Amino acid sequence: MRNPPAAAGPAPDLAARAPETLPHPGFGFDVLHRAADSAARVGRLTTPHGALDTPNFIFCGTKAALKAVTVDQAREADADIILANTYHLMIQPGADTVAALGGLHALTRWDGPMLTDSGGFQIFSMGHGGVAQEVKGSGGRKRETSLLRITEEGAAFRSYLDGRTLFLSPEGAMDVQRKLGADLVVQFDECTPFHVDRGYTERALRMSQRWADRSLARFARDEATSANGLPQAFYGIISGGVYRDLREDSCAFAAGRPYFGTAVGDCLGGDKEQMYEVVSYCTPHLPAGRPVHLLGIGNFRDILIGVTLGMDTFDCVHPTRVARHGWALKKGAKGERVNLRNARFREERGPIDATCPCPTCREYPAGYLHHAIKAGEMVGMTLISIHNMATMTRLMRDIRQGIATATLPQVSKDWLGE
Amino acid sequence: MRNPPAAAGPAPDLAARAPETLPHPGFGFDVLHRAADSAARVGRLTTPHGALDTPNFIFCGTKAALKAVTVDQAREADADIILANTYHLMIQPGADTVAALGGLHALTRWDGPMLTDSGGFQIFSMGHGGVAQEVKGSGGRKRETSLLRITEEGAAFRSYLDGRTLFLSPEGAMDVQRKLGADLVVQFDECTPFHVDRGYTERALRMSQRWADRSLARFARDEATSANGLPQAFYGIISGGVYRDLREDSCAFAAGRPYFGTAVGDCLGGDKEQMYEVVSYCTPHLPAGRPVHLLGIGNFRDILIGVTLGMDTFDCVHPTRVARHGWALKKGAKGERVNLRNARFREERGPIDATCPCPTCREYPAGYLHHAIKAGEMVGMTLISIHNMATMTRLMRDIRQGIATATLPQVSKDWLGE
Repeated sequence: MRNPPAAAGPAPDLAARAPETLPHPGFGFDVLHRAADSAARVGRLTTPHGALDTPNFIFCGTKAALKAVTVDQAREADADIILANTYHLMIQPGADTVAALGGLHALTRWDGPMLTDSGGFQIFSMGHGGVAQEVKGSGGRKRETSLLRITEEGAAFRSYLDGRTLFLSPEGAMDVQRKLGADLVVQFDECTPFHVDRGYTERALRMSQRWADRSLARFARDEATSANGLPQAFYGIISGGVYRDLREDSCAFAAGRPYFGTAVGDCLGGDKEQMYEVVSYCTPHLPAGRPVHLLGIGNFRDILIGVTLGMDTFDCVHPTRVARHGWALKKGAKGERVNLRNARFREERGPIDATCPCPTCREYPAGYLHHAIKAGEMVGMTLISIHNMATMTRLMRDIRQGIATATLPQVSKDWLGE
Repeated sequence: MRNPPAAAGPAPDLAARAPETLPHPGFGFDVLHRAADSAARVGRLTTPHGALDTPNFIFCGTKAALKAVTVDQAREADADIILANTYHLMIQPGADTVAALGGLHALTRWDGPMLTDSGGFQIFSMGHGGVAQEVKGSGGRKRETSLLRITEEGAAFRSYLDGRTLFLSPEGAMDVQRKLGADLVVQFDECTPFHVDRGYTERALRMSQRWADRSLARFARDEATSANGLPQAFYGIISGGVYRDLREDSCAFAAGRPYFGTAVGDCLGGDKEQMYEVVSYCTPHLPAGRPVHLLGIGNFRDILIGVTLGMDTFDCVHPTRVARHGWALKKGAKGERVNLRNARFREERGPIDATCPCPTCREYPAGYLHHAIKAGEMVGMTLISIHNMATMTRLMRDIRQGIATATLPQVSKDWLGE
């Protein structure tokens, strides 16, 4: 059952003051090139676990695992940064267990930069039976909701594992992320679905802003340091749904807070065109000098457009999820990908993509991947995942090169096959 | 429906003469050390795709894939040789498709020695609803049989994929293996179940001997060369069930044929003790100077005993199959393995086995593997598979060392925790 967020201010015991400054030692973001004709930029994001060039793509290791790919294979695919999900990990194996094992880096053996989200997106989007379903207008069967209630204090929801009731507050989301120990952590916000009206979205924005200050206050109280003793950096979220003035309000609010980075989140609209428009509302008002992450976006086209709108990093399960179903991403291909289950690959001795330098394309005939996927062999999922990850990192390299050499429109045409 | 094998000799159109010699160019087997107190020996088996030291273990890449492990990871686990199954591959993707893709080495990118079995074991054992079930005396539900009939010509069976009727003859099994293109190929035989009587077993032995000559004749006709133009070497099978005189008969028959290697197959008995006994019937009569493979055996104890009985190579799905269910093989552990799902591993920061030098034990806390397996993450299956493969290759190294230094009994005690 969904309760509308309270219109009133915070309850007294939940009041929290955002810190005016935050040290963020060991972190940095430098803009190295700016495009002349768009908000696109090349940057360098530094963390205690190394630096990465932006624009870049963050691969999803939801439950502290990149599904069919080991971290060694992720490195071979030139991945620079991965993320894990607070929502999934607080349930399994639990934040305390991750902390007892030394944090996510020790656990996964990923030694590069890592981000955790706040859990908000999963709680609210999965809680509503999947926002994606609604956005695509496919309606259909009403899925059971796992979201129980939203109050000023936080959100109650059912565990995906055993159905028990769990509760996450802004402070709790920070506590969990502190124990998980990623480099980059994200504030807890209410992620609104597409069907709600402006009034709801505005009330949710105000509450998310109060939650942002509570998140920041907890983060500052713990001295911006993980349970493992390493510094962490804070990303605030830009909310406001599809409403220009609310997005601008959210950007202004963020500019007044000592966030390290900015993540553009909340409902981005009902279709791609609206998503680009909503992101463009934010572009001129994004707090200067901070890295900007666009949450949950992973198609070539969306990334290529997102980059021109000033986005520095992206994340999506798309590249690895579709790989496990036999889809290989491909530069210039119609729909950005090919289906390796297709019979035309049965006796194909060439690679998925002759222009791709990834370990899978260097070694394996597409016919083998066709066979392995059809036969349900895990190694097929692994090899295609490696290719898809390498394709994303190649896309991001080409984009950076395109910005630096003022050839981004051509890069875009090449990747989209136009 | 099962028809007893014909008591009569071959039908005229199926008559085949075994060749008196076979070149087997590029292949060799040298015995380097012999144990003083058993039939154990250290050898070196050379193939066109490289050499391997024996005793050694052959890992199962049933459908031309090691399930959760890439060939690069298999190399990191020090695997020397893998096998693929004729029965599975003739159905999916089909021998012609494998040949069109350049053969198993080109397909899988495994560049080391490789063996294919003849398909007989699967057709007959799976055809009877699983011989393993029967051997273990667990009886229970009668499983549907996929074996349709056995005649002098060959065996008809149902495809595991779509139920269509397929037929495999000795010549057909050679043709398939020629197209698959492994280094080592195996004759087609009837693998008898445990419940049949001596009369049946003897008739099956005689037919398997006629099938051996037909297999050899086809192999010689094709000049011991794969469809890919590379030389192949032929393994004959020792049959005769649990009967000493039939096993001796089978060894004598094999000695008179120009096999490159010998594979001890057929029914090995109803329990471990009988298995050791049946293998020991063969030991004094195994054709001299040839490598000996023991089919389908993969426990530490069985291998340690098998080695003392003169076996040079072993294969089993066990190490990789149990890995995918969360079982890690462990030197000296009770039952030879530990269950990583056990709660005692939840916060374990140490490796599975502190004495194991494998990539998984070098890097990963057991607590992570516990989490990954419980969460259904494929990477958990991969990492445990790598450990189990590395453990088998380490066992085999220790065995070779034990034979060379006359310390095999101590190696055996160490590995079995006795």
